[in-house]
Amino acid sequence: MKICSTITDLRNARASLKRVGFVPTMGFLHEGHISLVREAKRQNDVVIVSIFVNPTQFSAHEDLDKYPRALERDSALLQEEGVDILFTPSADEIYPDGFSTRIDVGPLAHRIEGASRPGHFDGVATVVAKLFNIIQPDRAYFGQKDAQQCAVIQQLVRDLNIPVKIIIGDIIRNQNGLALSSRNSYLSTSQQQAATAIYRGLLHGKELFLSGMQNSSTLQHEITKIIEANGVNTVEYVYIVHPFSFELKETAEEGDLILVVAQNNNIRLLDNMKL
Amino acid sequence: MKICSTITDLRNARASLKRVGFVPTMGFLHEGHISLVREAKRQNDVVIVSIFVNPTQFSAHEDLDKYPRALERDSALLQEEGVDILFTPSADEIYPDGFSTRIDVGPLAHRIEGASRPGHFDGVATVVAKLFNIIQPDRAYFGQKDAQQCAVIQQLVRDLNIPVKIIIGDIIRNQNGLALSSRNSYLSTSQQQAATAIYRGLLHGKELFLSGMQNSSTLQHEITKIIEANGVNTVEYVYIVHPFSFELKETAEEGDLILVVAQNNNIRLLDNMKL
Repeated sequence: MKICSTITDLRNARASLKRVGFVPTMGFLHEGHISLVREAKRQNDVVIVSIFVNPTQFSAHEDLDKYPRALERDSALLQEEGVDILFTPSADEIYPDGFSTRIDVGPLAHRIEGASRPGHFDGVATVVAKLFNIIQPDRAYFGQKDAQQCAVIQQLVRDLNIPVKIIIGDIIRNQNGLALSSRNSYLSTSQQQAATAIYRGLLHGKELFLSGMQNSSTLQHEITKIIEANGVNTVEYVYIVHPFSFELKETAEEGDLILVVAQNNNIRLLDNMKL
Repeated sequence: MKICSTITDLRNARASLKRVGFVPTMGFLHEGHISLVREAKRQNDVVIVSIFVNPTQFSAHEDLDKYPRALERDSALLQEEGVDILFTPSADEIYPDGFSTRIDVGPLAHRIEGASRPGHFDGVATVVAKLFNIIQPDRAYFGQKDAQQCAVIQQLVRDLNIPVKIIIGDIIRNQNGLALSSRNSYLSTSQQQAATAIYRGLLHGKELFLSGMQNSSTLQHEITKIIEANGVNTVEYVYIVHPFSFELKETAEEGDLILVVAQNNNIRLLDNMKL
Protein backbone atom coordinates (compact mmCIF):
# COMPACT_ATOMS: atom_id res chain seq x y z
CA MET A 1 0.00 0.00 0.00
CA LYS A 2 1.21 3.48 -0.91
CA ILE A 3 0.79 6.26 1.68
CA CYS A 4 0.55 9.81 0.28
CA SER A 5 0.51 12.85 2.49
CA THR A 6 0.61 15.62 -0.12
CA ILE A 7 -1.95 16.46 -2.78
CA THR A 8 0.68 16.22 -5.53
CA ASP A 9 1.76 12.72 -4.46
CA LEU A 10 -1.83 11.63 -4.31
CA ARG A 11 -2.67 13.00 -7.77
CA ASN A 12 0.39 11.34 -9.30
CA ALA A 13 -0.53 8.03 -7.70
CA ARG A 14 -4.14 8.45 -8.81
CA ALA A 15 -3.23 9.20 -12.43
CA SER A 16 -1.80 5.73 -12.98
CA LEU A 17 -4.89 3.89 -11.75
CA LYS A 18 -8.12 2.48 -13.17
CA ARG A 19 -11.64 2.37 -11.62
CA VAL A 20 -11.19 4.03 -8.29
CA GLY A 21 -13.31 3.55 -5.19
CA PHE A 22 -12.82 6.12 -2.45
CA VAL A 23 -13.67 5.82 1.25
CA PRO A 24 -13.24 9.15 3.10
CA THR A 25 -12.91 8.69 6.86
CA MET A 26 -11.80 10.53 9.99
CA GLY A 27 -9.86 7.43 11.08
CA PHE A 28 -10.12 5.39 14.30
CA LEU A 29 -11.59 2.78 12.03
CA HIS A 30 -14.24 0.25 13.01
CA GLU A 31 -16.19 -2.49 11.22
CA GLY A 32 -18.46 0.17 9.69
CA HIS A 33 -15.53 1.70 7.80
CA ILE A 34 -14.15 -1.74 6.95
CA SER A 35 -17.48 -2.80 5.46
CA LEU A 36 -17.28 0.26 3.15
CA VAL A 37 -13.69 -0.61 2.20
CA ARG A 38 -14.74 -4.17 1.32
CA GLU A 39 -17.65 -2.92 -0.79
CA ALA A 40 -15.23 -0.55 -2.55
CA LYS A 41 -12.82 -3.46 -3.17
CA ARG A 42 -15.63 -5.51 -4.73
CA GLN A 43 -16.74 -2.73 -7.08
CA ASN A 44 -13.45 -1.13 -8.21
CA ASP A 45 -9.97 -1.92 -9.49
CA VAL A 46 -8.32 0.05 -6.74
CA VAL A 47 -9.36 1.55 -3.43
CA ILE A 48 -8.21 4.83 -1.89
CA VAL A 49 -8.99 5.62 1.74
CA SER A 50 -8.46 9.01 3.34
CA ILE A 51 -7.99 9.65 7.04
CA PHE A 52 -8.49 13.31 7.82
CA VAL A 53 -10.06 14.72 10.98
CA ASN A 54 -11.55 17.73 9.23
CA PRO A 55 -11.35 20.81 11.49
CA THR A 56 -13.96 22.82 9.55
CA GLN A 57 -16.78 20.45 10.46
CA PHE A 58 -16.19 20.90 14.21
CA SER A 59 -17.28 24.04 16.03
CA ALA A 60 -15.15 25.71 18.66
CA HIS A 61 -16.69 23.87 21.64
CA GLU A 62 -16.67 20.43 20.00
CA ASP A 63 -14.28 17.50 20.33
CA LEU A 64 -11.78 18.20 17.52
CA ASP A 65 -8.75 17.99 19.80
CA LYS A 66 -9.78 14.85 21.63
CA TYR A 67 -11.30 13.12 18.60
CA PRO A 68 -9.79 9.60 18.79
CA ARG A 69 -6.82 8.92 16.51
CA ALA A 70 -4.92 5.68 15.84
CA LEU A 71 -3.10 6.10 12.54
CA GLU A 72 -0.74 3.15 12.96
CA ARG A 73 -3.49 0.72 13.83
CA ASP A 74 -5.73 2.12 11.05
CA SER A 75 -2.94 1.84 8.53
CA ALA A 76 -2.31 -1.82 9.44
CA LEU A 77 -6.04 -2.58 9.18
CA LEU A 78 -6.27 -1.02 5.71
CA GLN A 79 -3.11 -2.78 4.57
CA GLU A 80 -4.75 -6.07 5.59
CA GLU A 81 -7.86 -5.18 3.58
CA GLY A 82 -5.75 -4.65 0.46
CA VAL A 83 -6.28 -0.90 0.21
CA ASP A 84 -4.09 0.59 -2.56
CA ILE A 85 -3.56 4.15 -1.37
CA LEU A 86 -4.02 5.74 2.03
CA PHE A 87 -4.24 9.54 1.94
CA THR A 88 -3.33 11.18 5.26
CA PRO A 89 -3.06 14.93 4.60
CA SER A 90 -2.26 17.48 7.28
CA ALA A 91 -4.74 20.29 7.97
CA ASP A 92 -2.29 22.69 6.27
CA GLU A 93 -2.22 20.52 3.15
CA ILE A 94 -6.01 20.75 2.88
CA TYR A 95 -6.41 24.31 4.19
CA PRO A 96 -3.31 26.30 3.19
CA ASP A 97 -2.93 29.99 4.02
CA GLY A 98 -5.54 32.06 2.24
CA PHE A 99 -8.13 29.30 2.00
CA SER A 100 -11.61 30.83 2.28
CA THR A 101 -14.22 28.93 0.24
CA ARG A 102 -17.39 27.47 1.69
CA ILE A 103 -20.02 25.26 0.06
CA ASP A 104 -23.55 25.40 1.42
CA VAL A 105 -25.89 22.79 -0.07
CA GLY A 106 -28.98 24.71 1.06
CA PRO A 107 -31.94 24.11 3.41
CA LEU A 108 -31.14 20.43 4.00
CA ALA A 109 -27.83 21.46 5.58
CA HIS A 110 -29.54 23.78 8.06
CA ARG A 111 -32.09 21.32 9.43
CA ILE A 112 -31.77 18.83 12.35
CA GLU A 113 -28.02 18.19 12.83
CA GLY A 114 -27.31 21.32 10.78
CA ALA A 115 -29.36 23.33 13.28
CA SER A 116 -27.65 21.66 16.28
CA ARG A 117 -24.22 22.14 14.71
CA PRO A 118 -24.21 25.38 12.64
CA GLY A 119 -21.67 25.23 9.82
CA HIS A 120 -21.07 21.50 10.30
CA PHE A 121 -22.44 20.41 6.94
CA ASP A 122 -20.72 23.31 5.13
CA GLY A 123 -17.47 21.90 6.49
CA VAL A 124 -18.43 18.40 5.37
CA ALA A 125 -19.57 19.47 1.88
CA THR A 126 -16.48 21.60 1.32
CA VAL A 127 -13.94 18.97 2.38
CA VAL A 128 -15.73 16.23 0.42
CA ALA A 129 -15.74 18.41 -2.72
CA LYS A 130 -12.01 19.00 -2.22
CA LEU A 131 -11.27 15.30 -1.66
CA PHE A 132 -13.29 14.39 -4.75
CA ASN A 133 -11.34 16.90 -6.84
CA ILE A 134 -8.04 15.64 -5.46
CA ILE A 135 -8.79 11.93 -5.85
CA GLN A 136 -11.25 11.95 -8.74
CA PRO A 137 -12.82 8.65 -7.76
CA ASP A 138 -15.41 6.80 -9.80
CA ARG A 139 -17.32 5.80 -6.68
CA ALA A 140 -17.28 7.08 -3.10
CA TYR A 141 -18.58 5.28 -0.03
CA PHE A 142 -20.36 6.68 3.02
CA GLY A 143 -22.13 5.02 5.95
CA GLN A 144 -25.88 5.36 6.53
CA LYS A 145 -25.17 5.87 10.26
CA ASP A 146 -24.61 9.54 9.40
CA ALA A 147 -27.85 9.71 7.45
CA GLN A 148 -28.03 13.48 7.02
CA GLN A 149 -24.38 13.61 5.94
CA CYS A 150 -25.23 11.07 3.23
CA ALA A 151 -28.12 13.26 2.07
CA VAL A 152 -25.92 16.38 2.08
CA ILE A 153 -23.29 14.67 -0.05
CA GLN A 154 -25.89 13.40 -2.50
CA GLN A 155 -27.25 16.95 -2.80
CA LEU A 156 -23.71 18.29 -3.30
CA VAL A 157 -22.88 15.78 -6.02
CA ARG A 158 -26.17 16.29 -7.83
CA ASP A 159 -26.10 20.11 -7.62
CA LEU A 160 -22.47 20.54 -8.67
CA ASN A 161 -22.55 17.77 -11.31
CA ILE A 162 -19.65 16.02 -9.60
CA PRO A 163 -18.90 12.90 -11.67
CA VAL A 164 -18.74 10.51 -8.69
CA LYS A 165 -21.22 7.76 -7.88
CA ILE A 166 -22.18 7.81 -4.20
CA ILE A 167 -22.65 4.42 -2.51
CA ILE A 168 -24.29 4.32 0.93
CA GLY A 169 -23.37 1.37 3.16
CA ASP A 170 -25.77 -0.01 5.78
CA ILE A 171 -25.33 0.80 9.46
CA ILE A 172 -23.03 -1.73 11.09
CA ARG A 173 -23.95 -2.59 14.71
CA ASN A 174 -22.28 -4.56 17.49
CA GLN A 175 -23.90 -7.79 18.69
CA ASN A 176 -26.22 -5.79 20.99
CA GLY A 177 -27.34 -3.43 18.26
CA LEU A 178 -25.26 -0.35 19.11
CA ALA A 179 -24.39 1.46 15.85
CA LEU A 180 -20.60 1.48 15.45
CA SER A 181 -19.00 4.91 15.76
CA SER A 182 -15.49 6.10 16.50
CA ARG A 183 -17.03 8.15 19.31
CA ASN A 184 -18.22 4.96 21.09
CA SER A 185 -14.63 4.79 22.37
CA TYR A 186 -15.56 7.65 24.71
CA LEU A 187 -17.96 5.28 26.55
CA SER A 188 -17.23 2.64 29.20
CA THR A 189 -18.45 -0.91 28.62
CA SER A 190 -21.51 -0.35 30.82
CA GLN A 191 -22.32 2.95 29.10
CA GLN A 192 -22.05 1.18 25.74
CA GLN A 193 -24.40 -1.48 27.08
CA ALA A 194 -26.92 1.20 28.15
CA ALA A 195 -26.61 2.85 24.72
CA THR A 196 -27.97 -0.26 23.03
CA ALA A 197 -31.40 0.97 24.20
CA ILE A 198 -31.20 3.38 21.25
CA TYR A 199 -31.48 0.51 18.81
CA ARG A 200 -34.25 -1.13 20.84
CA GLY A 201 -36.13 2.18 20.76
CA LEU A 202 -35.78 2.39 16.97
CA LEU A 203 -36.91 -1.21 16.54
CA HIS A 204 -39.92 -0.55 18.76
CA GLY A 205 -40.78 2.55 16.73
CA LYS A 206 -40.57 0.64 13.47
CA GLU A 207 -42.72 -2.15 14.93
CA LEU A 208 -45.37 0.38 15.98
CA PHE A 209 -45.28 1.97 12.53
CA LEU A 210 -45.68 -1.42 10.84
CA SER A 211 -48.67 -2.13 13.08
CA GLY A 212 -50.33 1.05 11.82
CA MET A 213 -49.12 3.92 14.06
CA GLN A 214 -48.28 6.85 11.77
CA ASN A 215 -48.48 9.76 14.21
CA SER A 216 -44.97 11.15 14.62
CA SER A 217 -45.50 12.58 18.13
CA THR A 218 -46.70 9.23 19.43
CA LEU A 219 -43.81 7.40 17.77
CA GLN A 220 -41.32 9.93 19.19
CA HIS A 221 -42.81 9.56 22.66
CA GLU A 222 -42.74 5.74 22.61
CA ILE A 223 -39.17 5.60 21.26
CA THR A 224 -37.95 8.15 23.82
CA LYS A 225 -39.46 6.14 26.69
CA ILE A 226 -37.49 3.04 25.74
CA ILE A 227 -34.20 4.87 25.17
CA GLU A 228 -34.40 6.72 28.49
CA ALA A 229 -35.75 3.78 30.55
CA ASN A 230 -32.33 2.77 31.87
CA GLY A 231 -31.61 6.26 33.25
CA VAL A 232 -28.27 6.54 31.42
CA ASN A 233 -29.33 7.97 28.07
CA THR A 234 -30.94 11.37 27.56
CA VAL A 235 -32.76 11.80 24.29
CA GLU A 236 -31.75 15.01 22.51
CA TYR A 237 -34.23 14.37 19.74
CA VAL A 238 -36.29 11.73 18.01
CA TYR A 239 -37.55 12.93 14.64
CA ILE A 240 -39.40 11.38 11.74
CA VAL A 241 -38.08 13.04 8.57
CA HIS A 242 -38.27 12.87 4.80
CA PRO A 243 -35.27 10.76 3.69
CA PHE A 244 -33.87 13.34 1.21
CA SER A 245 -34.96 16.79 2.44
CA PHE A 246 -34.89 15.94 6.18
CA GLU A 247 -38.06 17.97 6.62
CA LEU A 248 -40.04 16.91 9.70
CA LYS A 249 -43.05 14.69 9.03
CA GLU A 250 -46.18 14.87 11.16
CA THR A 251 -47.40 11.64 9.68
CA ALA A 252 -44.82 8.91 9.13
CA GLU A 253 -44.74 7.18 5.76
CA GLU A 254 -42.86 4.22 4.33
CA GLY A 255 -39.36 5.34 3.34
CA ASP A 256 -39.16 8.07 5.99
CA LEU A 257 -36.31 7.97 8.50
CA ILE A 258 -36.49 7.85 12.27
CA LEU A 259 -33.53 9.89 13.53
CA VAL A 260 -32.27 9.65 17.08
CA VAL A 261 -29.63 11.57 18.94
CA ALA A 262 -29.17 10.43 22.51
CA GLN A 263 -26.63 11.67 24.98
CA ASN A 264 -24.79 9.17 27.13
CA ASN A 265 -21.93 10.41 29.30
CA ASN A 266 -22.32 13.75 27.44
CA ILE A 267 -21.42 12.00 24.19
CA ARG A 268 -23.89 12.52 21.33
CA LEU A 269 -24.79 9.16 19.79
CA LEU A 270 -26.55 9.22 16.41
CA ASP A 271 -28.64 6.43 15.03
CA ASN A 272 -31.45 6.07 12.52
CA MET A 273 -33.76 3.58 10.88
CA LYS A 274 -35.70 3.57 7.65
CA LEU A 275 -39.45 2.99 7.89
CA MET B 1 -18.74 21.22 -34.69
CA LYS B 2 -20.94 19.23 -32.33
CA ILE B 3 -23.64 21.11 -30.38
CA CYS B 4 -24.70 19.54 -27.06
CA SER B 5 -27.58 20.86 -25.01
CA THR B 6 -27.77 18.23 -22.28
CA ILE B 7 -25.19 17.36 -19.64
CA THR B 8 -25.18 13.69 -20.69
CA ASP B 9 -24.51 14.54 -24.35
CA LEU B 10 -21.74 16.85 -23.31
CA ARG B 11 -20.09 14.27 -21.04
CA ASN B 12 -20.24 11.59 -23.72
CA ALA B 13 -18.70 13.94 -26.25
CA ARG B 14 -16.08 14.99 -23.72
CA ALA B 15 -15.09 11.41 -22.85
CA SER B 16 -13.76 10.71 -26.32
CA LEU B 17 -11.46 13.74 -26.42
CA LYS B 18 -7.89 14.61 -25.51
CA ARG B 19 -6.45 17.87 -24.03
CA VAL B 20 -9.48 20.06 -23.61
CA GLY B 21 -9.55 23.84 -23.48
CA PHE B 22 -12.79 25.38 -22.24
CA VAL B 23 -14.09 28.91 -22.80
CA PRO B 24 -17.22 29.64 -20.72
CA THR B 25 -19.23 32.60 -22.05
CA MET B 26 -22.65 34.21 -21.82
CA GLY B 27 -22.73 34.53 -25.62
CA PHE B 28 -23.17 37.61 -27.81
CA LEU B 29 -19.55 37.02 -28.66
CA HIS B 30 -17.01 39.72 -29.50
CA GLU B 31 -13.30 39.80 -30.27
CA GLY B 32 -12.51 39.38 -26.58
CA HIS B 33 -14.18 35.97 -26.52
CA ILE B 34 -12.69 35.06 -29.88
CA SER B 35 -9.19 35.86 -28.63
CA LEU B 36 -9.77 33.38 -25.78
CA VAL B 37 -11.01 30.75 -28.22
CA ARG B 38 -7.91 31.21 -30.35
CA GLU B 39 -5.63 30.91 -27.33
CA ALA B 40 -7.51 27.74 -26.35
CA LYS B 41 -7.07 26.36 -29.89
CA ARG B 42 -3.31 26.97 -29.70
CA GLN B 43 -2.90 25.23 -26.34
CA ASN B 44 -5.22 22.21 -26.60
CA ASP B 45 -6.28 19.35 -28.87
CA VAL B 46 -9.89 20.35 -28.71
CA VAL B 47 -11.88 23.39 -27.63
CA ILE B 48 -15.26 23.47 -25.92
CA VAL B 49 -17.18 26.73 -25.60
CA SER B 50 -20.28 27.17 -23.47
CA ILE B 51 -22.93 29.82 -23.97
CA PHE B 52 -25.09 30.14 -20.90
CA VAL B 53 -26.60 33.35 -19.55
CA ASN B 54 -26.42 32.27 -15.94
CA PRO B 55 -29.48 33.50 -14.03
CA THR B 56 -27.91 33.05 -10.56
CA GLN B 57 -25.33 35.76 -11.16
CA PHE B 58 -27.97 38.41 -11.89
CA SER B 59 -30.03 39.98 -9.12
CA ALA B 60 -33.74 40.66 -9.47
CA HIS B 61 -33.36 44.24 -10.73
CA GLU B 62 -30.56 43.46 -13.22
CA ASP B 63 -30.60 42.87 -16.96
CA LEU B 64 -31.02 39.06 -17.17
CA ASP B 65 -34.04 39.25 -19.46
CA LYS B 66 -32.65 41.84 -21.82
CA TYR B 67 -29.08 40.52 -21.79
CA PRO B 68 -28.17 40.39 -25.51
CA ARG B 69 -28.42 37.00 -27.19
CA ALA B 70 -27.44 35.92 -30.72
CA LEU B 71 -27.01 32.15 -30.67
CA GLU B 72 -27.08 31.65 -34.43
CA ARG B 73 -24.46 34.29 -35.11
CA ASP B 74 -22.34 33.06 -32.17
CA SER B 75 -22.56 29.48 -33.38
CA ALA B 76 -21.41 30.47 -36.88
CA LEU B 77 -18.50 32.47 -35.43
CA LEU B 78 -17.36 29.52 -33.32
CA GLN B 79 -17.72 27.12 -36.23
CA GLU B 80 -15.43 29.40 -38.22
CA GLU B 81 -12.88 29.36 -35.39
CA GLY B 82 -12.78 25.56 -35.45
CA VAL B 83 -14.41 25.02 -32.05
CA ASP B 84 -15.11 21.32 -31.46
CA ILE B 85 -18.08 21.41 -29.10
CA LEU B 86 -20.51 24.18 -28.26
CA PHE B 87 -22.46 23.59 -25.05
CA THR B 88 -25.76 25.52 -24.87
CA PRO B 89 -27.65 24.23 -21.85
CA SER B 90 -31.04 25.54 -20.77
CA ALA B 91 -31.42 27.01 -17.28
CA ASP B 92 -33.39 23.87 -16.30
CA GLU B 93 -30.53 21.66 -17.45
CA ILE B 94 -28.13 23.51 -15.15
CA TYR B 95 -30.57 24.22 -12.31
CA PRO B 96 -33.08 21.35 -12.17
CA ASP B 97 -35.84 21.21 -9.55
CA GLY B 98 -34.39 20.87 -6.07
CA PHE B 99 -31.09 22.58 -6.86
CA SER B 100 -29.92 24.50 -3.79
CA THR B 101 -26.10 24.60 -3.49
CA ARG B 102 -24.09 27.80 -3.25
CA ILE B 103 -20.32 28.30 -3.28
CA ASP B 104 -18.93 31.36 -1.54
CA VAL B 105 -15.18 31.89 -2.08
CA GLY B 106 -14.94 34.23 0.92
CA PRO B 107 -14.03 37.89 1.54
CA LEU B 108 -12.79 38.52 -2.02
CA ALA B 109 -16.30 37.78 -3.30
CA HIS B 110 -17.87 40.37 -1.01
CA ARG B 111 -15.65 43.33 -1.92
CA ILE B 112 -16.03 45.93 -4.72
CA GLU B 113 -18.30 44.33 -7.38
CA GLY B 114 -19.37 41.75 -4.77
CA ALA B 115 -20.59 44.60 -2.56
CA SER B 116 -22.34 46.35 -5.49
CA ARG B 117 -23.92 43.09 -6.63
CA PRO B 118 -24.60 40.88 -3.56
CA GLY B 119 -24.57 37.18 -4.45
CA HIS B 120 -23.14 37.85 -7.93
CA PHE B 121 -19.84 36.04 -7.36
CA ASP B 122 -21.55 33.14 -5.55
CA GLY B 123 -23.53 32.67 -8.75
CA VAL B 124 -20.37 32.87 -10.83
CA ALA B 125 -18.36 30.48 -8.61
CA THR B 126 -21.18 27.95 -8.46
CA VAL B 127 -21.88 27.82 -12.19
CA VAL B 128 -18.17 27.68 -13.03
CA ALA B 129 -17.68 24.77 -10.59
CA LYS B 130 -20.61 23.00 -12.26
CA LEU B 131 -19.32 23.64 -15.77
CA PHE B 132 -15.85 22.42 -14.78
CA ASN B 133 -17.35 19.20 -13.36
CA ILE B 134 -19.47 18.71 -16.47
CA ILE B 135 -16.71 19.41 -18.99
CA GLN B 136 -13.61 18.42 -17.05
CA PRO B 137 -11.32 20.64 -19.08
CA ASP B 138 -7.56 20.72 -18.74
CA ARG B 139 -7.49 24.50 -19.18
CA ALA B 140 -10.17 27.19 -18.90
CA TYR B 141 -10.02 30.72 -20.30
CA PHE B 142 -11.33 33.96 -18.84
CA GLY B 143 -10.89 37.59 -19.85
CA GLN B 144 -9.05 40.11 -17.66
CA LYS B 145 -11.82 42.65 -18.40
CA ASP B 146 -13.76 41.04 -15.53
CA ALA B 147 -10.75 41.23 -13.23
CA GLN B 148 -12.49 40.37 -9.99
CA GLN B 149 -14.28 37.44 -11.62
CA CYS B 150 -10.85 36.12 -12.66
CA ALA B 151 -9.64 36.43 -9.06
CA VAL B 152 -12.77 34.70 -7.74
CA ILE B 153 -12.30 31.79 -10.11
CA GLN B 154 -8.63 31.44 -9.22
CA GLN B 155 -9.59 31.38 -5.53
CA LEU B 156 -12.29 28.77 -6.27
CA VAL B 157 -9.93 26.51 -8.18
CA ARG B 158 -7.18 26.80 -5.59
CA ASP B 159 -9.46 26.30 -2.57
CA LEU B 160 -11.42 23.34 -3.97
CA ASN B 161 -8.37 21.70 -5.63
CA ILE B 162 -10.15 21.76 -8.98
CA PRO B 163 -7.75 20.17 -11.50
CA VAL B 164 -8.13 22.88 -14.15
CA LYS B 165 -5.48 25.38 -15.21
CA ILE B 166 -6.91 28.90 -15.43
CA ILE B 167 -5.63 31.10 -18.27
CA ILE B 168 -6.42 34.82 -18.20
CA GLY B 169 -6.56 36.62 -21.56
CA ASP B 170 -5.71 40.32 -21.93
CA ILE B 171 -8.43 42.93 -22.28
CA ILE B 172 -9.35 43.40 -25.93
CA ARG B 173 -10.25 46.99 -26.89
CA ASN B 174 -11.73 48.62 -29.96
CA GLN B 175 -9.57 51.04 -31.97
CA ASN B 176 -10.49 53.88 -29.57
CA GLY B 177 -9.60 51.90 -26.47
CA LEU B 178 -13.09 50.93 -25.26
CA ALA B 179 -12.87 47.50 -23.60
CA LEU B 180 -15.03 45.05 -25.54
CA SER B 181 -18.13 43.85 -23.70
CA SER B 182 -21.40 42.28 -24.79
CA ARG B 183 -23.10 45.08 -22.87
CA ASN B 184 -21.54 47.72 -25.20
CA SER B 185 -24.38 46.80 -27.54
CA TYR B 186 -26.69 48.74 -25.21
CA LEU B 187 -24.85 51.96 -26.22
CA SER B 188 -25.28 54.14 -29.31
CA THR B 189 -22.22 54.92 -31.41
CA SER B 190 -21.82 58.34 -29.78
CA GLN B 191 -22.22 56.87 -26.29
CA GLN B 192 -19.56 54.26 -27.15
CA GLN B 193 -17.33 57.10 -28.32
CA ALA B 194 -17.84 58.93 -25.02
CA ALA B 195 -17.10 55.70 -23.11
CA THR B 196 -13.59 55.60 -24.54
CA ALA B 197 -12.76 58.26 -21.94
CA ILE B 198 -12.62 55.36 -19.45
CA TYR B 199 -9.51 54.01 -21.14
CA ARG B 200 -7.96 57.46 -21.38
CA GLY B 201 -8.61 57.91 -17.65
CA LEU B 202 -6.88 54.60 -16.89
CA LEU B 203 -3.91 55.49 -19.12
CA HIS B 204 -3.60 58.85 -17.40
CA GLY B 205 -3.69 57.17 -13.98
CA LYS B 206 -0.99 54.73 -14.98
CA GLU B 207 1.12 57.55 -16.38
CA LEU B 208 0.80 59.50 -13.11
CA PHE B 209 1.74 56.38 -11.15
CA LEU B 210 4.80 55.79 -13.32
CA SER B 211 5.85 59.39 -12.76
CA GLY B 212 5.78 58.77 -8.98
CA MET B 213 2.23 59.44 -7.78
CA GLN B 214 1.28 56.64 -5.38
CA ASN B 215 -1.52 58.27 -3.40
CA SER B 216 -4.72 56.40 -4.27
CA SER B 217 -7.09 59.32 -3.56
CA THR B 218 -5.16 61.59 -5.91
CA LEU B 219 -5.06 58.94 -8.63
CA GLN B 220 -8.80 58.26 -8.21
CA HIS B 221 -9.54 61.98 -8.42
CA GLU B 222 -7.45 62.54 -11.56
CA ILE B 223 -8.86 59.48 -13.33
CA THR B 224 -12.45 60.43 -12.45
CA LYS B 225 -11.94 63.94 -13.88
CA ILE B 226 -10.93 62.58 -17.28
CA ILE B 227 -13.71 59.98 -17.45
CA GLU B 228 -16.41 62.48 -16.52
CA ALA B 229 -15.06 65.39 -18.63
CA ASN B 230 -17.35 64.71 -21.58
CA GLY B 231 -20.50 64.86 -19.42
CA VAL B 232 -21.76 61.47 -20.63
CA ASN B 233 -20.06 59.13 -18.19
CA THR B 234 -20.67 59.03 -14.42
CA VAL B 235 -17.99 57.32 -12.41
CA GLU B 236 -19.46 54.78 -9.98
CA TYR B 237 -16.05 54.04 -8.56
CA VAL B 238 -12.33 54.21 -9.23
CA TYR B 239 -10.37 51.98 -6.86
CA ILE B 240 -6.78 50.90 -6.51
CA VAL B 241 -6.80 47.32 -5.22
CA HIS B 242 -4.53 44.40 -4.46
CA PRO B 243 -4.62 42.17 -7.56
CA PHE B 244 -5.60 38.95 -5.71
CA SER B 245 -7.51 39.99 -2.58
CA PHE B 246 -9.11 43.13 -4.10
CA GLU B 247 -8.50 44.92 -0.82
CA LEU B 248 -8.36 48.71 -1.24
CA LYS B 249 -4.87 50.21 -1.27
CA GLU B 250 -4.15 53.66 0.14
CA THR B 251 -0.77 53.67 -1.52
CA ALA B 252 -0.58 52.24 -5.02
CA GLU B 253 2.18 49.73 -5.78
CA GLU B 254 3.41 48.01 -8.90
CA GLY B 255 1.15 45.07 -9.71
CA ASP B 256 -1.95 46.65 -8.15
CA LEU B 257 -5.05 47.10 -10.28
CA ILE B 258 -6.91 50.29 -11.09
CA LEU B 259 -10.58 49.34 -11.29
CA VAL B 260 -13.18 51.55 -12.91
CA VAL B 261 -16.92 51.27 -13.18
CA ALA B 262 -18.50 54.11 -15.10
CA GLN B 263 -22.15 54.49 -15.99
CA ASN B 264 -23.08 55.61 -19.46
CA ASN B 265 -26.74 55.57 -20.48
CA ASN B 266 -27.34 53.74 -17.15
CA ILE B 267 -25.16 50.87 -18.38
CA ARG B 268 -22.36 49.85 -16.02
CA LEU B 269 -19.07 49.66 -17.93
CA LEU B 270 -16.17 47.87 -16.23
CA ASP B 271 -12.54 48.38 -17.06
CA ASN B 272 -9.22 47.96 -15.31
CA MET B 273 -5.48 48.33 -15.74
CA LYS B 274 -2.52 46.79 -14.00
CA LEU B 275 0.03 49.19 -12.50
